Amino acid sequence: MKIAHVAPLYESVPPRLYGGTERIVSYLTEALVDLGHEVTLFASGDSQTSAKLVAGRECALRLDPRPLKSEIAAHLSMLAQVRDRAREFDVIHFHLSHFLHFSFFEDIAERTVTTPHGRLDYVDLAPTYERFPRFPLISISHSQKAGLAKANWLATIHHGLPTGIYEPTFGATPEEPYLAFLGRFSRDKRPDRAIEIAMRSGLKLKLAAKIGDDDRAYFHEVVEPLIDGDRIVYVGEIEEHQKAEFLGKAAGLLFPIDWPEPFGLVAIEAMACSTPVIGWNCGALPEIIDHGVTGFIAESVDGAVAAVPDLLQLDRRKVRAVFEKRFSARRMAGDYLAAYARLIGVPSEAKAS
Amino acid sequence: MKIAHVAPLYESVPPRLYGGTERIVSYLTEALVDLGHEVTLFASGDSQTSAKLVAGRECALRLDPRPLKSEIAAHLSMLAQVRDRAREFDVIHFHLSHFLHFSFFEDIAERTVTTPHGRLDYVDLAPTYERFPRFPLISISHSQKAGLAKANWLATIHHGLPTGIYEPTFGATPEEPYLAFLGRFSRDKRPDRAIEIAMRSGLKLKLAAKIGDDDRAYFHEVVEPLIDGDRIVYVGEIEEHQKAEFLGKAAGLLFPIDWPEPFGLVAIEAMACSTPVIGWNCGALPEIIDHGVTGFIAESVDGAVAAVPDLLQLDRRKVRAVFEKRFSARRMAGDYLAAYARLIGVPSEAKAS
Repeated sequence: MKIAHVAPLYESVPPRLYGGTERIVSYLTEALVDLGHEVTLFASGDSQTSAKLVAGRECALRLDPRPLKSEIAAHLSMLAQVRDRAREFDVIHFHLSHFLHFSFFEDIAERTVTTPHGRLDYVDLAPTYERFPRFPLISISHSQKAGLAKANWLATIHHGLPTGIYEPTFGATPEEPYLAFLGRFSRDKRPDRAIEIAMRSGLKLKLAAKIGDDDRAYFHEVVEPLIDGDRIVYVGEIEEHQKAEFLGKAAGLLFPIDWPEPFGLVAIEAMACSTPVIGWNCGALPEIIDHGVTGFIAESVDGAVAAVPDLLQLDRRKVRAVFEKRFSARRMAGDYLAAYARLIGVPSEAKAS
Repeated sequence: MKIAHVAPLYESVPPRLYGGTERIVSYLTEALVDLGHEVTLFASGDSQTSAKLVAGRECALRLDPRPLKSEIAAHLSMLAQVRDRAREFDVIHFHLSHFLHFSFFEDIAERTVTTPHGRLDYVDLAPTYERFPRFPLISISHSQKAGLAKANWLATIHHGLPTGIYEPTFGATPEEPYLAFLGRFSRDKRPDRAIEIAMRSGLKLKLAAKIGDDDRAYFHEVVEPLIDGDRIVYVGEIEEHQKAEFLGKAAGLLFPIDWPEPFGLVAIEAMACSTPVIGWNCGALPEIIDHGVTGFIAESVDGAVAAVPDLLQLDRRKVRAVFEKRFSARRMAGDYLAAYARLIGVPSEAKAS
């Protein structure tokens, strides 16, 4: 198939800094190329890809040091380029937020797919989508769809990771087992809950997290006083290449979020490292964690504390096996290919172009 | 003429809080209605207008207390409404930034007018405009055009104010004459320069300014230590109805900006109150201030200090007269009507519909 992917311009594909959407676009496009498809990637010019790269902008917005940038104009310019070349593709797949591309592609809406990567319960989204009802959407979880229930949903396709990027450790246990918290120190991520769970479980907790500008006050007021450097240890912000060791050596990941996370990449990163997860009954987590197999779903701190001994008993080989089956980039690419095939009316087992 | 105006949704028209664009849209649409034209205003539903109001969104984005709003989706929804009704209008006049509307109206670009109200030297604007070169633009100053020199510029039309909103005082001099500074305490506005000019001139300075979140550090570090409450007085943030007295009683306005201000509404507000202005040779100010008549253009603090005695000698009746001639809303509306007429090929003296 001839497939165009249109990525946000905030980060390169893959991202050099944080950028969940751009990472998934990278994994998906690489997997589609591996499967023999002809993929064109519209993204920032500093992207690295096996697909044909078309630079929507010279460099990623977030890494461009010039002070006066326009996020909207940058994306409009890229979309005009995509439109000029629209006839070249069987399917055009958009990864942009908030429907910025809809007005450009109304005449070929049925040949487009849109994956919204964020939450969909913004008050302006449903009334806006109603004005563009033909655009097929693919959700990244069933939970995500709730914010925009009445849309032309084509499929739900969970994210996936290349199976080779994290080596499963099967628990190369360090001297003292620890629980892990990975993400940002924001109120929504509830590091305070993670700390309470660890304290009450008698296990050490290592927190690897970014302190964003918006989260600094919360960190100093709520989190920092709880970090004792002994049972509760802040290891700083870690980079991509440090994740495998940090997650892989952990006895479990705590993911006690308090917001409708539309997916939760960190949870499947842990599973890729054979590490089970305690996640909250919130957002997509109940779809991602197989309760009693790859982790546990908790409703309260009490419930989470009670689950910790069981977590330590889970079979880490099984955690990795479930990851490979449910959350590989290859599985994700296959699901998208099946959706593209349904869309353009070719048999889903269609060969690569 | 049947004219549609499309306002940003950040503030109502007119704005309840700060919003220069929405104020100008209000003045312009009211003047066009007064002149007998059939005006439809697409704006937030909490707007107040003599035109026919079409609510692009229930209420202004900035005043909507709900946490999850999408500025982009809100504007896209309004633009889809405008497009559905495009045939009803002779001209559609957009006041949106960064070209969000271009993709909706390419087939009728020649019946649209766009007034960009902000600066145009964002790096993404010129390459994006190149992909939509047919859209006619109207600048709010000649200076503003420099950022986007190669565009389809239809006209330059300076802003205007209704002549009745500020009563000229002709200098109802208070016991002690003072200079005025009005705006925000941002680095770009250079309140520190205003303070230095006043100190060296031996005149009192009253500052009426907002301290925005972004400007708080600058205010505390640079400005606050210079406020002595005697020669240099901070009177807080003032409301629209307090401006006439604050500006009208001042001996002059200091506008020593350090950025390419595309217009500078405060300067003409002062002139409306018969108060002359010392402005920097920066952005649109040399176009707006008639050097030696409504104020002086300075290149340095020395130059500004030297101009203060001359400023006090200017004829305040003349300042007001020039304001009425050059910067009335009626003059602005007439200029826009002439531009619309050129655009759609009717004689510029065409009668109202």
